[in-house]
Amino acid sequence: MRTTVGIIGAGPAGLLLARLLSDAGIDSVVLESRDRPYVEQRQRAGILEQGTIDVLRAAGAGERMDREGLRHDGIELRYDRTRHRVDFPALTGGRSVMVYAQTEVCKDLIALQLKDGAPLLFEAEALAVEDADTDRPRVRFRHEGREDVLECDYVVGCDGFWGVARKAIPASVSRTFERTYPFGWLGILADVPPSHDELVYARHDRGFALLSMRSPSVSRLYLQVPEGTDAEEWSDDEIWAELERRFETDDDWRLERGPITQKSVTPMRSYVHEPMRHGRLFLAGDAAHIVPPTGAKGLNLAVGDVVTFARALTDQRETGSSELLDAYSATCLRRVWQAERFSYDMTTLLHRAPDATPFEDRLQLARLARIASSRAAETELAEAYTGFPVD
Amino acid sequence: MRTTVGIIGAGPAGLLLARLLSDAGIDSVVLESRDRPYVEQRQRAGILEQGTIDVLRAAGAGERMDREGLRHDGIELRYDRTRHRVDFPALTGGRSVMVYAQTEVCKDLIALQLKDGAPLLFEAEALAVEDADTDRPRVRFRHEGREDVLECDYVVGCDGFWGVARKAIPASVSRTFERTYPFGWLGILADVPPSHDELVYARHDRGFALLSMRSPSVSRLYLQVPEGTDAEEWSDDEIWAELERRFETDDDWRLERGPITQKSVTPMRSYVHEPMRHGRLFLAGDAAHIVPPTGAKGLNLAVGDVVTFARALTDQRETGSSELLDAYSATCLRRVWQAERFSYDMTTLLHRAPDATPFEDRLQLARLARIASSRAAETELAEAYTGFPVD
Repeated sequence: MRTTVGIIGAGPAGLLLARLLSDAGIDSVVLESRDRPYVEQRQRAGILEQGTIDVLRAAGAGERMDREGLRHDGIELRYDRTRHRVDFPALTGGRSVMVYAQTEVCKDLIALQLKDGAPLLFEAEALAVEDADTDRPRVRFRHEGREDVLECDYVVGCDGFWGVARKAIPASVSRTFERTYPFGWLGILADVPPSHDELVYARHDRGFALLSMRSPSVSRLYLQVPEGTDAEEWSDDEIWAELERRFETDDDWRLERGPITQKSVTPMRSYVHEPMRHGRLFLAGDAAHIVPPTGAKGLNLAVGDVVTFARALTDQRETGSSELLDAYSATCLRRVWQAERFSYDMTTLLHRAPDATPFEDRLQLARLARIASSRAAETELAEAYTGFPVD
Repeated sequence: MRTTVGIIGAGPAGLLLARLLSDAGIDSVVLESRDRPYVEQRQRAGILEQGTIDVLRAAGAGERMDREGLRHDGIELRYDRTRHRVDFPALTGGRSVMVYAQTEVCKDLIALQLKDGAPLLFEAEALAVEDADTDRPRVRFRHEGREDVLECDYVVGCDGFWGVARKAIPASVSRTFERTYPFGWLGILADVPPSHDELVYARHDRGFALLSMRSPSVSRLYLQVPEGTDAEEWSDDEIWAELERRFETDDDWRLERGPITQKSVTPMRSYVHEPMRHGRLFLAGDAAHIVPPTGAKGLNLAVGDVVTFARALTDQRETGSSELLDAYSATCLRRVWQAERFSYDMTTLLHRAPDATPFEDRLQLARLARIASSRAAETELAEAYTGFPVD
């Protein structure tokens, strides 16, 4: 099999890239190791930055998003039993975000891709990227019981942290940057309308909690839990009771309980692989970088990467210059490191480390008080939350 | 001996407090364990916030400061061989800082105090504060070879981190918050005009460096060194060579060398004691809190404390209400924790920890790039550097 751009992975990065290339008249093949129901159901992020929204609309994937997505003009910070709202449009000149689950983005993009007939192979497991530093890189993969080869001009690895693409970059040219956290998120989906109409980020002595939502009738809630926690250790009642404690306020706000339909623990990690390009192999999204979910940046970063790649390849087609392709890694990494920084800061602002000192506790409260009292500090947060521009 | 306010320590906090009280018609006695030449020579901070400048002027101690102090409208951040200037007035609506050494502030205040004849006893070593929780607190002290007692309505401990005042607060009501750093500052005074007309804060893989000045002809320079370093381990040539490396840029900026006249190592510490008041004993300045010097906040915090105390006592005299005195600790601590936060952030932004990971190095560079590219982030820094308001 032969194509211009071989795309490994049908998460939002790979699927969107296929659309962007298709719109630019560039052919591609997407290889996805899982089956379609799996891809359409795995729970991931749910916050789309303005830039991501714009790209999805331009790619023709905005119709259902605009109908069902929830526009959010702010978030609430909760600490010391008090509440502070960060007003995004007022602080950023009109920017906001949208709550629309990654699963829904994937469904929309898959439907579009299959309708157009561009090749999207499920249960096609990439085994290795070969000859990345030649002008004929190849992806070896297994599909329907046999091995095959996808010959490409370019390969884009959108295959996540555990994928094979990154492994094709020799250790001698790779640098990795990593930070782990001694806690994770116990996340639940519950059939109950969200108790607040915007996301609530709560800093509490017992640990972080986040109130989010999937729709007007489905709540998504998270609790900071120790690293390695098994979700089944927590009964539904214990989860609700702990959420209530961490969201407690001095006013009459109340958390509504409802049936929990899903329960899982997400580990937290910061990770960056440099460079994000080796020869004709390009890494995008989680294949190159992981952020802890506190800043809601993972999906948006992946979108930024594939937009950067699609623009660069289009430009090369039009002008003959590979300048933008050559700059791919540096261009993406500038944005990636800003998102890493923000995600790290949001995480350390709100989570309680098991070995936190009293000094660090006070520092967190001082940071929150600063955001609540300085328009500059609050603007910095609002700018970063609503998104870094794609260069 | 008897007075209204017994002040322990003739650093800038104690000396300024005596002036403020004197202006309000409240009598005080200042006890200082050292002799006058010592107090007038110990090298400390040198950056006065706008609020501090205003207070010193109002206290009649502004004449020489206004003549000899250097107004600074910004600082330079240097990293990755590049330079970024933070323009204070443009970002904060006109605020700036002044370079005028703490030793000079002390000389001016001592001269004023001695001229007025208000009691300021040198070589009067406070031994203990007694009966702080009664309305007749006392300071036992040793002066001219014999022990004496200063009977007071109020005692203000301006006697620094190692002083006796804080020890009079029972452990049962005390909470302390502390952070140490695995590095210190090797500081030099050199008889050479400063190589830049504003302070330069340099982040370098080899460690932090700061270019500052005492006057147009005297440079003050600092190098991050490992904790416990002896200043004598460093020859003058080694110091200059290391400074040159850490300040290196891609342009033709050059560091001018000159004779080093003083050399010492300052340890770094963050420390807060809560509460800052116990009965009729009030802590001010370093007696209650220490910040690492990176944010230039120590002297300014001390000034904020004594202004708060003088206002509160004056208000109590005028209205009969002790509301402001009762709020002293909470009022000061709000500002203190903001300064602690800022000093910690400036320190971790610019210093290289001996165990820094590659991830943390990149995070520092991303933070610096953020300050250089986001007006909001830069404004937050400029606001904090030029000073938090005294409530």
